[in-house]
Amino acid sequence: MKFHHNKLRQFTQSLFEAMGCPSPDAKVIADVLIAAELRGIPSHGLMRVKDYYAMVEAKRINTSPQVRITYETPSTATVDGDNALGPVAAKKSMEIAIAKAKVAGTGWVATNNSNHYGIAGYYSMMALEHDMIGISLTNANPLVAPTYSAERLLGTNPIAVAIPTQNEPPFIADFATTPIARGKLAIKSKLGETVPLGLVQDKEGNPTSNPGTLEQGGAILTLGGGGVNLGGHKGYCMTALVDIFSSVLSGANFGPFVPPQVAYLPLLEQSVGKGLGHFFGAIRVDAFRPAAEFKKSMDTWIHTFRTSKSVDSDNPVQIPGDNERKTESAYLLDGVPVIPKIFDELCEIANALNVEQL
Amino acid sequence: MKFHHNKLRQFTQSLFEAMGCPSPDAKVIADVLIAAELRGIPSHGLMRVKDYYAMVEAKRINTSPQVRITYETPSTATVDGDNALGPVAAKKSMEIAIAKAKVAGTGWVATNNSNHYGIAGYYSMMALEHDMIGISLTNANPLVAPTYSAERLLGTNPIAVAIPTQNEPPFIADFATTPIARGKLAIKSKLGETVPLGLVQDKEGNPTSNPGTLEQGGAILTLGGGGVNLGGHKGYCMTALVDIFSSVLSGANFGPFVPPQVAYLPLLEQSVGKGLGHFFGAIRVDAFRPAAEFKKSMDTWIHTFRTSKSVDSDNPVQIPGDNERKTESAYLLDGVPVIPKIFDELCEIANALNVEQL
Repeated sequence: MKFHHNKLRQFTQSLFEAMGCPSPDAKVIADVLIAAELRGIPSHGLMRVKDYYAMVEAKRINTSPQVRITYETPSTATVDGDNALGPVAAKKSMEIAIAKAKVAGTGWVATNNSNHYGIAGYYSMMALEHDMIGISLTNANPLVAPTYSAERLLGTNPIAVAIPTQNEPPFIADFATTPIARGKLAIKSKLGETVPLGLVQDKEGNPTSNPGTLEQGGAILTLGGGGVNLGGHKGYCMTALVDIFSSVLSGANFGPFVPPQVAYLPLLEQSVGKGLGHFFGAIRVDAFRPAAEFKKSMDTWIHTFRTSKSVDSDNPVQIPGDNERKTESAYLLDGVPVIPKIFDELCEIANALNVEQL
Repeated sequence: MKFHHNKLRQFTQSLFEAMGCPSPDAKVIADVLIAAELRGIPSHGLMRVKDYYAMVEAKRINTSPQVRITYETPSTATVDGDNALGPVAAKKSMEIAIAKAKVAGTGWVATNNSNHYGIAGYYSMMALEHDMIGISLTNANPLVAPTYSAERLLGTNPIAVAIPTQNEPPFIADFATTPIARGKLAIKSKLGETVPLGLVQDKEGNPTSNPGTLEQGGAILTLGGGGVNLGGHKGYCMTALVDIFSSVLSGANFGPFVPPQVAYLPLLEQSVGKGLGHFFGAIRVDAFRPAAEFKKSMDTWIHTFRTSKSVDSDNPVQIPGDNERKTESAYLLDGVPVIPKIFDELCEIANALNVEQL
């Protein structure tokens, strides 16, 4: 079944209004979740409504938050998310980064006391219309083992960077720093398939091709795999840096102490900060060179890479963001597909909240 | 053969003075190269003196540069390296980033018209004594194929991030964004060894275990390997971002247009900017929270990771920078080993420049 994106957005907004969120906040949450659907990342889209709702019902989320700056310099701010749903704290934080960049050339915001914020790319893309590079990082629940570790100490901590262009579509990198995301493992596991070695390890830290290993105490490996032979220690550095920027700078919980983002897991006994953390950056490109020059040069960069010789004709060389843009174009025209299981979940929630059905 | 680091530093400084560099510049270059030796990264140490000298002799380097700001905002600057030896342009650029951060909270410098700058970590570590996080990126000669490409379009583009701490040693990540560096492949090739699949591809883009493939038109793969199964497209994003920040922001040459950093390769016919590019960042940790709080939290982060359960007792979980620090402690005490081939090269150069031998 397919729905027009506006209809999905309006329906989702109504659900969050019914949960007690002020309309402007509900609108932000809906926009972030539908942006994920449009970009072909359903794992961060409507699938999250059920989790967010359960967190609200369990009173683990503040639906009337006062997101505010607690500390600042000309180019930086620390933001207290007041335990908001992540998109509310994150959008406000990125707006502050952009406002800082207008004056200081760049703006950097570390956000604590927040929650799951959806797709990282949404916030980085907010910078584009201002001729700024946008950066968005977040930590996440621990599922990832550092190099040589048998423990899950890091999240799949994504990095998103959006870079403005002149005539080419913008460069939009938005990726978990691990080789595979949890959602994709779950699908493989349900289908009874195996995964290549280099993605996950078992409870003792041995290599495994079992995608269900997370449910048995296993862990996702860092980019580059286990050990150092294929550079796994470099992936560990990247995932660790995202964690430190999101949490140690902001005063949020780091690594193993990130609070669960689903209501069926108990809260952790130990806390080393406030909630989950994000980090945002906005860089005015004309803080370095005239914007038109920068954007023309970015077009040349993209053209050079896109037209380079590919290994086989079925797989041309891509620019980060190409895939998501194609999906978005198609879904804007033809509607957004919603799988029956998620549709049923949404119907149940609408029923419980007395909201008009989709 | 081993030498006291001070003796090596003084000797190296004399060589660069004899090449025509002002004493303060020669001192910087020597300090950067010996820092690489001390940290156990000889591929970026004295081995480079011969290449730098040949570049100077070929008049491809300006030994009396005026490194200067050409564009700035409160938190940013663009620096023209005036075709200096990389360490001279890079150290000045990082000093500017630190000065900007003192006033604006953060400082960001994009440097064009530069050359090979040695170890990325040197510049990031300059921030530590100011209670700042230091960031250092550079592009480099094209040896790396983006995902699905048969062409070499990117360098091994390193990322270095140094983070201050209270009682723990600082967190110092300094890594090429590719799974292996060129120097390590060359050593494997000379020993007649093979490398695991996932590090390099041949001229047509096929997987290969031949470490000599670079000499035959092959390429280094991105972190995560070829294709997308193990996340190679994420490694492509990282290496591409380092290139764009170092070149498109600064106005230097990007990717395939980075000028050769050895005199035996001809200059490229096409140029899309000025020289090679770097990007530097300095972040005052007290621009986000009190410095003592930040550093104490960083200590807790490090302690948590270092004491986590390892897969086997021979390989405890490490913190980025641990290995290099251990090597440095040993070399400071026992002297820095110099392999005979490099010693002979240095003797020849000293002879040619009429400098007193080591």
